[in-house]
Amino acid sequence: MKTFLNEIKENEDVDAFFLIKEKTTGVTKTGNAYLKVKLGDRSGEMEGRIWTSVEALAESFKKDDFVHVRGKAISFQEHLQLNITHIKAVGENEILFSDFFPMTEKDVDEMFQTLIDISQQVQHQHLSQLLRLFWEDKPFLERFKMAPASKQLHHSYLGGLLEHTLSLASLVLKNISHYDGLNFDLLLTGSILHDLGKVDELSYDRSFDYSDEGRLLGHIILGIERVEGKIRQVPDFPKDLSIQLKHLLISHHGQYHWGSPKRPMTLEAVMLHYLDNMDAKLNGIQQFLKTQVPDGSKWSPYHPMFEQFFYMPNLWEQVKLPNPIDQNDEGSKE
Amino acid sequence: MKTFLNEIKENEDVDAFFLIKEKTTGVTKTGNAYLKVKLGDRSGEMEGRIWTSVEALAESFKKDDFVHVRGKAISFQEHLQLNITHIKAVGENEILFSDFFPMTEKDVDEMFQTLIDISQQVQHQHLSQLLRLFWEDKPFLERFKMAPASKQLHHSYLGGLLEHTLSLASLVLKNISHYDGLNFDLLLTGSILHDLGKVDELSYDRSFDYSDEGRLLGHIILGIERVEGKIRQVPDFPKDLSIQLKHLLISHHGQYHWGSPKRPMTLEAVMLHYLDNMDAKLNGIQQFLKTQVPDGSKWSPYHPMFEQFFYMPNLWEQVKLPNPIDQNDEGSKE
Amino acid sequence: MKTFLNEIKENEDVDAFFLIKEKTTGVTKTGNAYLKVKLGDRSGEMEGRIWTSVEALAESFKKDDFVHVRGKAISFQEHLQLNITHIKAVGENEILFSDFFPMTEKDVDEMFQTLIDISQQVQHQHLSQLLRLFWEDKPFLERFKMAPASKQLHHSYLGGLLEHTLSLASLVLKNISHYDGLNFDLLLTGSILHDLGKVDELSYDRSFDYSDEGRLLGHIILGIERVEGKIRQVPDFPKDLSIQLKHLLISHHGQYHWGSPKRPMTLEAVMLHYLDNMDAKLNGIQQFLKTQVPDGSKWSPYHPMFEQFFYMPNLWEQVKLPNPIDQNDEGSKE
Amino acid sequence: MKTFLNEIKENEDVDAFFLIKEKTTGVTKTGNAYLKVKLGDRSGEMEGRIWTSVEALAESFKKDDFVHVRGKAISFQEHLQLNITHIKAVGENEILFSDFFPMTEKDVDEMFQTLIDISQQVQHQHLSQLLRLFWEDKPFLERFKMAPASKQLHHSYLGGLLEHTLSLASLVLKNISHYDGLNFDLLLTGSILHDLGKVDELSYDRSFDYSDEGRLLGHIILGIERVEGKIRQVPDFPKDLSIQLKHLLISHHGQYHWGSPKRPMTLEAVMLHYLDNMDAKLNGIQQFLKTQVPDGSKWSPYHPMFEQFFYMPNLWEQVKLPNPIDQNDEGSKE
Amino acid sequence: MKTFLNEIKENEDVDAFFLIKEKTTGVTKTGNAYLKVKLGDRSGEMEGRIWTSVEALAESFKKDDFVHVRGKAISFQEHLQLNITHIKAVGENEILFSDFFPMTEKDVDEMFQTLIDISQQVQHQHLSQLLRLFWEDKPFLERFKMAPASKQLHHSYLGGLLEHTLSLASLVLKNISHYDGLNFDLLLTGSILHDLGKVDELSYDRSFDYSDEGRLLGHIILGIERVEGKIRQVPDFPKDLSIQLKHLLISHHGQYHWGSPKRPMTLEAVMLHYLDNMDAKLNGIQQFLKTQVPDGSKWSPYHPMFEQFFYMPNLWEQVKLPNPIDQNDEGSKE
Amino acid sequence: MKTFLNEIKENEDVDAFFLIKEKTTGVTKTGNAYLKVKLGDRSGEMEGRIWTSVEALAESFKKDDFVHVRGKAISFQEHLQLNITHIKAVGENEILFSDFFPMTEKDVDEMFQTLIDISQQVQHQHLSQLLRLFWEDKPFLERFKMAPASKQLHHSYLGGLLEHTLSLASLVLKNISHYDGLNFDLLLTGSILHDLGKVDELSYDRSFDYSDEGRLLGHIILGIERVEGKIRQVPDFPKDLSIQLKHLLISHHGQYHWGSPKRPMTLEAVMLHYLDNMDAKLNGIQQFLKTQVPDGSKWSPYHPMFEQFFYMPNLWEQVKLPNPIDQNDEGSKE
Repeated sequence: MKTFLNEIKENEDVDAFFLIKEKTTGVTKTGNAYLKVKLGDRSGEMEGRIWTSVEALAESFKKDDFVHVRGKAISFQEHLQLNITHIKAVGENEILFSDFFPMTEKDVDEMFQTLIDISQQVQHQHLSQLLRLFWEDKPFLERFKMAPASKQLHHSYLGGLLEHTLSLASLVLKNISHYDGLNFDLLLTGSILHDLGKVDELSYDRSFDYSDEGRLLGHIILGIERVEGKIRQVPDFPKDLSIQLKHLLISHHGQYHWGSPKRPMTLEAVMLHYLDNMDAKLNGIQQFLKTQVPDGSKWSPYHPMFEQFFYMPNLWEQVKLPNPIDQNDEGSKE
Repeated sequence: MKTFLNEIKENEDVDAFFLIKEKTTGVTKTGNAYLKVKLGDRSGEMEGRIWTSVEALAESFKKDDFVHVRGKAISFQEHLQLNITHIKAVGENEILFSDFFPMTEKDVDEMFQTLIDISQQVQHQHLSQLLRLFWEDKPFLERFKMAPASKQLHHSYLGGLLEHTLSLASLVLKNISHYDGLNFDLLLTGSILHDLGKVDELSYDRSFDYSDEGRLLGHIILGIERVEGKIRQVPDFPKDLSIQLKHLLISHHGQYHWGSPKRPMTLEAVMLHYLDNMDAKLNGIQQFLKTQVPDGSKWSPYHPMFEQFFYMPNLWEQVKLPNPIDQNDEGSKE
Repeated sequence: MKTFLNEIKENEDVDAFFLIKEKTTGVTKTGNAYLKVKLGDRSGEMEGRIWTSVEALAESFKKDDFVHVRGKAISFQEHLQLNITHIKAVGENEILFSDFFPMTEKDVDEMFQTLIDISQQVQHQHLSQLLRLFWEDKPFLERFKMAPASKQLHHSYLGGLLEHTLSLASLVLKNISHYDGLNFDLLLTGSILHDLGKVDELSYDRSFDYSDEGRLLGHIILGIERVEGKIRQVPDFPKDLSIQLKHLLISHHGQYHWGSPKRPMTLEAVMLHYLDNMDAKLNGIQQFLKTQVPDGSKWSPYHPMFEQFFYMPNLWEQVKLPNPIDQNDEGSKE
Repeated sequence: MKTFLNEIKENEDVDAFFLIKEKTTGVTKTGNAYLKVKLGDRSGEMEGRIWTSVEALAESFKKDDFVHVRGKAISFQEHLQLNITHIKAVGENEILFSDFFPMTEKDVDEMFQTLIDISQQVQHQHLSQLLRLFWEDKPFLERFKMAPASKQLHHSYLGGLLEHTLSLASLVLKNISHYDGLNFDLLLTGSILHDLGKVDELSYDRSFDYSDEGRLLGHIILGIERVEGKIRQVPDFPKDLSIQLKHLLISHHGQYHWGSPKRPMTLEAVMLHYLDNMDAKLNGIQQFLKTQVPDGSKWSPYHPMFEQFFYMPNLWEQVKLPNPIDQNDEGSKE
Repeated sequence: MKTFLNEIKENEDVDAFFLIKEKTTGVTKTGNAYLKVKLGDRSGEMEGRIWTSVEALAESFKKDDFVHVRGKAISFQEHLQLNITHIKAVGENEILFSDFFPMTEKDVDEMFQTLIDISQQVQHQHLSQLLRLFWEDKPFLERFKMAPASKQLHHSYLGGLLEHTLSLASLVLKNISHYDGLNFDLLLTGSILHDLGKVDELSYDRSFDYSDEGRLLGHIILGIERVEGKIRQVPDFPKDLSIQLKHLLISHHGQYHWGSPKRPMTLEAVMLHYLDNMDAKLNGIQQFLKTQVPDGSKWSPYHPMFEQFFYMPNLWEQVKLPNPIDQNDEGSKE
Repeated sequence: MKTFLNEIKENEDVDAFFLIKEKTTGVTKTGNAYLKVKLGDRSGEMEGRIWTSVEALAESFKKDDFVHVRGKAISFQEHLQLNITHIKAVGENEILFSDFFPMTEKDVDEMFQTLIDISQQVQHQHLSQLLRLFWEDKPFLERFKMAPASKQLHHSYLGGLLEHTLSLASLVLKNISHYDGLNFDLLLTGSILHDLGKVDELSYDRSFDYSDEGRLLGHIILGIERVEGKIRQVPDFPKDLSIQLKHLLISHHGQYHWGSPKRPMTLEAVMLHYLDNMDAKLNGIQQFLKTQVPDGSKWSPYHPMFEQFFYMPNLWEQVKLPNPIDQNDEGSKE
């Protein structure tokens, strides 16, 4: 089993796989070249130094490679640092993605199957066809299944977009019959497609960040383009329906200052907005509490984006904390 | 069956019950005294005049009385006006409240029974006891069952507070298991008690308005006082629990500028806020659409408090519009 | 020459063309049917009544028709009203559009030719091709030339969108060389296309209002779809360029709360935002001053959307006021 | 006299009392256990280390104890650190509270007596009785006399709540007769009780922070509960008066976004709000200037909560700066 | 004693002085010219008509004249109207200003003398000299004594600026010694001069409105210019003092969005801001309550600028209401 | 040629001119006095130490002197530090100002001449005379030519105010004829004078910061005073014109919360606001991109005042980056 960076102690010998996050060359005061690397895995980061066989080892890996490393942890200026004696790039098939990146604790394929099942409740011919076109789009699916739902606010881990989408669709199923007058097929389809622009907005193969088009256009515009692209492939897709479906996408943030160019104007859009918001907020808080609350404390630190503290008096009894190493958590809770 | 004010035509003879909303004395150009009244019922208002037997009739009723009226509708300056020949106060038992005030379309007793049943799912000894104390408080219940949930924004009809409370508690039942780590008993109790200060905030026996304490203190403070009063009667009510329960009440508006002195800081408070908001908004829009949308239009007029228009393309097919006269709609949809 | 509604005096005989804005049937106190119409033209509105030959005349026109009317103006409850003796629908070819709707004072075809000329300064192959596709799209051009730029804020008259677009493109030509580092072809193309979603956002054939898709999606989304549709027809349109061009469209309002899902992030987007804003504001103020300032006053009334007053000390000397009847002002000031 | 932490120089021998703010165990590179402590007093904090007799000394004190310490100050990584050779817990009676915590410069008992005197000007029977109940509540008084008025914004030192309350009551006395129509007894009582929820909102026995109920409910709700609790003990306390008094408490922040669930609606509430605000702001600025202005400067650093700089040209002549060691400043300035 | 417009009854003969607010010419249906005037006095406005001797009477007065009028009140379209038989302009010396415009209930000369007395407490040579220059400026004083303090928000009556200035200076006297470190002479001078730009901002000889320079520059800039003009006449006025004094003027609104180009940065500016704000708000509320509260009600109507309701439970007992006719209230309450 | 601080390498011998930003005395652990200085030039800052001949060298320079320094660069705690062996103050004539402070890349005298030329297009006698008075005011000109336009937001380098003023005047020339009804002379004069208060607001002889009057009054008030001072010297300057000109100055920020006490109310003020804003923003972004964008990146770091990122895909091809050492860039681009 992989040794994680946050488990390494001073003076320990290390033999494990890491990701190369930075790689630069330095010169010692005595004029010798050495290599400085920043190693990373799911548990954090650590500086590494290669003092010997520098030239040879320098050839054997590059930035963004997964590498096999051997070395010894020493303490330098109050931080641990790895003196590396062996380093070599390895293929993606030799490592477990979930060792290197935060990842949903649920089973991606199970979640996806559940989403497919839910989407089959859509009876309306054109909407049903539209969804099917997405489920048949392999390159899209590959990204859709792995994308995080945000850089850091909620569901910000691999598979997070799928997890959030499934969660929202399930919430729609639970709440829609509570009120009269909402269009089931329209709202369910909208919930499934509402965030799909995020497959283009974020890049997440080596770290989580926004893509150029993500920053310049944003997932609402990118989602509209993907949906419009598929709608054109559905013969006779009704224009009215298309307008209402797109309205769900562009209004789901609910407010102009949250980046929605329109506020929700239909009953479906209003419900979608509240459920989406609730799901994002509750997941965001739980993610924050799980990773940021000091042991034993009932209070979270200050959350910079929500601009407040959170309180969870029974955090240490009730919430099942994710085991950072051994999760064999099975599938969606749905 | 009662004749409603908005059904009266010019030159019609009228014989019906109304509420006296205003009563003043005038003098004709020829120096004779006459009575000016404003009549009201659920369908609207109309001016009335008493030209004969003024002194005698003036004795027979006062402002805020329900009255039996006979007279003839004439047109004066483009408005209908009732020339009254007979008028006499009648008791509340002679009229139907729902003829005079907007009222929930659901059965109040059925709704209340459902709420009791739901509240029995609360297992926690102190919370359960707290709820029981409210259910045994007759004067409270009398107001709780009839109060509107707001003056005009949502559920603004007799029985609206009960309807909204039941709706919110049902939503909590549907959504709570969707997430880990929420305290079922706490959140369910909070949802049932969240708006109970409204029984004191609003006056609604002759018209819907805020009471003095409603304007000066508001339903959040008034609710805290009612809850605190009952908590003192529960032996050994845990202080921590009391704080968390009250936090649910004071934070459920979600934002300072919506009058919450604290923002939601617990998972339960966050969920309560979103579901309460969703329920109020959806009911508010539907109420607005039902009463304000011009026949056949897909668009509502501008909603001054939500500051936008609403769109409901299938309003005239899908939504069962309430018959303002003959509603025999049966009970809660739960 | 057409008689305008605001020129009609009491007791005058009228013989002119108007637009039927409303048409309903009434019954006199003596039980006879009559027709109530609301007539309109560029100068305002007036009530009309048809008391005789009601059935026959009722057949001869309907709401939204242009009609030929003969009748006499009488005064009723302090307003003028037209007693109509003859009324008959006429074709659009029998009337002048500009007699009925506010219209740009400039020559539409000349403006359009100037815009074409400007657009030919774009050298970049793909952008140039993109523009050409729009200029070859007949149904688009028909709307683009006649659409107003807004319902009431600025350039809110037929031809206003074209006038504003031409004005903005001219401003770009004048200002772009003032700074280093701006991409001429990109910015000029962006200025020409920035508001084109308005051809779908507004309906303006009988009155100025938002279309359903205008309200639910807005001209930014609608514009993106039109641009994206054309970009797909340009072979090998570079993706980076497409992103930057769309960024110009979606960010030109400059702020989230003005409906832009992204704020300007490139030099081109920043300049476009300021020049567009300046042009809209200056035209909006001038339009307001021309139509709303009481004779001789230096101060405008309160402008409800800009939430202020405007001051124009030399309004009555300097500004050429449009003659509401005889304008033969020709062409663009460019 | 006590040696203060900010007076200690490198290589000095130290023999003094401190507060243990943190206490943890470390292991040296050679494998020996040692103790790390953080020492504190009114003047600041300093790291301490115990290298010898670790086990024995570890027993002799714990976190939050006051301790008697002997040791030598050495420099480590540019900071002073205390190498401790002797350490032992001492009782609270062996130290002076004001050596350890920032404390009002005024005499607490004198201030309290003045406040009692002022409160006796209240003539109204029920209000007077209400105040007396507070003055007879020993546990309340103990906290009321020592509580700070805020964590860091104004009067944030022991005795600060009393000092601010007295100051505000005095301001009311000075200003109330300036206007007609204000109820003297109501406003004076309100000023005395306005912040009393702070005795529960803040914890301040070892450091200044919010209590759980402080964060979840806040001093406005907590104050309402304390006042309501006492009002119930006053026979026949008029309901109207109770509502107006509570309105003073809940509206005194003046704005929703400052946490007031109601804005001031009575003349008394308006005056209370302005005077409270003025007192808090002026004290907050003076406290900031006294502690944060670099020697000789006329400008304060940026104040992060007020978001501005402050200017005090004659700071160094006029304001008597508190001597951090020898203050024998006596009593209230009233 | 003058007959006031709001006392006139139908069919009464009227013989009194009024102000001509509007004067236009009309033509009757029979083709004869008549005069339409709008009459005004302190109590309100009324339409008047001159049907006979039109030409002769038209010569005898013009808009903004005070006139002597004889006529009869008749009812037209539910409003009273004066049929005028005699009308003639009179000089300002024949009328009482306070019969025509709302005016302070206090004695202007007494108030001014009190302000002079207060200003003599300023010891600082240059400040004292500055104030004296204002007191010796006759044209300034004439305006300063009569100007209202605002168009409608507070002290909006003749003499209101003086009343507010005196009130604020008195408040400064009462509060300044409450805190250490404030410069008495600076703050007192600032309070006296803080609003003096209002003598130029408002025009109030025939109605209350903003002057052109009032709208375009505002009283803060106008005040700075007046103060700067006088400072130049004081030999060797210290520059530092001048900056601090002007800072008091420009920051006294306290916030940018209330039109202050700087927020208060000195202790004096902070106190001035709060006291000024309190005085304006309390006067504004009282003025609103006195004129706008329906008889017997404890609640005011909605105040459009403060955006709330006000509550004054004992309005009808406690507040001495100003007699709109017979005020012989003497001088300042100071 | 001058050696710049950011070019110095470890162990290098240095012989160059610097500015003394701080100068203090320290004592070594062995009890010897030494001097600590902070050296600065245009490229950055560096710590320096003088260990020998301390007393003698201490006499030879003081804070804010330009000095000639000889010494050796050593590394201390990961930063370079200069061990100084020789140091001596030099006169301002021995150094190049632009070596020490960021400076416009354009030729100041050329820019100024161009501005004079432009200002001669003003025909209006009084405005023209007003401008001439400024051009003849030597002390003003000295500051006007060297002042930066802001501390750090835009044109924040010596000569920046002149550069921005010239740029804005040029923009006015390019845009004014685009619209009817703007007063050329007024707007051009306003653009030239709009920011002149900045010569007093900022101090920039040794570093860029706000002066006392800059912080307390701001450049809008300071500019008004300078303009008013000159207007008084122009015989018969029309009052209306003076008001409108000052309105341009005080409203050019456009919004209250940007410190404008009035929003633009004239066409000239509206145009000035937009063009000024555009010029400041575009320059600010370019300045930020030039100095802050990491080599090769298309994205800027987060801009803290604009609160966003900026994108410049072709930054490294298109924009001529200023050579920090050898700029011989000639004159204005106008």
